[in-house]
Amino acid sequence: MSRRGVFITFEGGEGVGKSTQIKTADAWLAERGHDVVVTREPGGTARAERIRELVVSADGGPLSPLAELLLMFAARISHIEELILPALADGKVVLCDRFVDASYAYQGAGRGLPEARIAELESWLPAAARPDLTILLDAPVETGLARARGRGRPDRFEMEQKAFFERVRAAYLERAHRFPERFAIVDATASPKRVGAAVCAILESRLAGAAKQAE
Amino acid sequence: MSRRGVFITFEGGEGVGKSTQIKTADAWLAERGHDVVVTREPGGTARAERIRELVVSADGGPLSPLAELLLMFAARISHIEELILPALADGKVVLCDRFVDASYAYQGAGRGLPEARIAELESWLPAAARPDLTILLDAPVETGLARARGRGRPDRFEMEQKAFFERVRAAYLERAHRFPERFAIVDATASPKRVGAAVCAILESRLAGAAKQAE
Repeated sequence: MSRRGVFITFEGGEGVGKSTQIKTADAWLAERGHDVVVTREPGGTARAERIRELVVSADGGPLSPLAELLLMFAARISHIEELILPALADGKVVLCDRFVDASYAYQGAGRGLPEARIAELESWLPAAARPDLTILLDAPVETGLARARGRGRPDRFEMEQKAFFERVRAAYLERAHRFPERFAIVDATASPKRVGAAVCAILESRLAGAAKQAE
Repeated sequence: MSRRGVFITFEGGEGVGKSTQIKTADAWLAERGHDVVVTREPGGTARAERIRELVVSADGGPLSPLAELLLMFAARISHIEELILPALADGKVVLCDRFVDASYAYQGAGRGLPEARIAELESWLPAAARPDLTILLDAPVETGLARARGRGRPDRFEMEQKAFFERVRAAYLERAHRFPERFAIVDATASPKRVGAAVCAILESRLAGAAKQAE
């Protein structure tokens, strides 16, 4: 499938403000005439949302890390094939709340699965589904958790302990430093408005770069 | 986890009589004082049955072969960790309707996924979950389909075409010839009673062999 759109993922731990910043990015892009699709992982399609239910729900009994990883990738493949690739082929800008990096951070660093297994599964995904830009919203674990805990009944992930989220944060930062051309790190401790300004500045410079490449 | 039980899987295409023969084996083993657990894939635990629903249901819209494979293995891991390994550790005989060989036959040969991917996922499973004996009930595709079609509304697999089931059957036979020490092929075209007698004869010789090894 030929790709003419732009694929942007938003990553970060609990309560770092991904939803808010995706809304900001959506509005900023739409104002500039881009056709934007906002989606999330796990989820994004009817079947993937049903898989999400299975993974995220705290009611389903035990779920081993490996089963969790495979469910995440099953949902991801459905999401890529049915939503992300068709939208990119249509020239849209796809904004996705979490993607493959989240598997490295949560199932890898968080749950302790070997990185090689995640890399193996990642290698099975279509190359056209690689993000052009990943915006990592970074904040100390305490800050994010305090925000996330204001949101009602916690899911399976939100019930984890602080050490889990410290590993998640460290893994995200490590990946951002390993892939500096794809990642942009944004300090998510500032006010939503200031974080939004930083996000839009990144979009501006990266989209200009993408447009130049396409010329 | 230490293993004292025996793990026996039943494989074969649609309508070859797996359910009937598992009942026969169950009764035969119980009469001889074995503690038997009967289970099936995909399924066997609450979460795995929910994954089964997602895979087998014809209502859920498109599902790519790779997503199907990952869902099968996610269900399998839940099944292995929560049911199969604990039962084997308790010294039980576990009779399972389909297992890893079914992924090679259905998602591999049937849907065309590379065998290497299935082998990679298989290598992630606990070694203690390898079957001691696999009984392949083999019948020409026409025979099995005629039986299966008498059973009401077809699921996603039963809706496949004859060529799909020919590939499934060939893959099962190929695996049986590749792993002759684990597999026993039973001609499933005979009457259920005669097939049952063949199954029980295999159980008798293999369990005697297993008992001898354990001495």
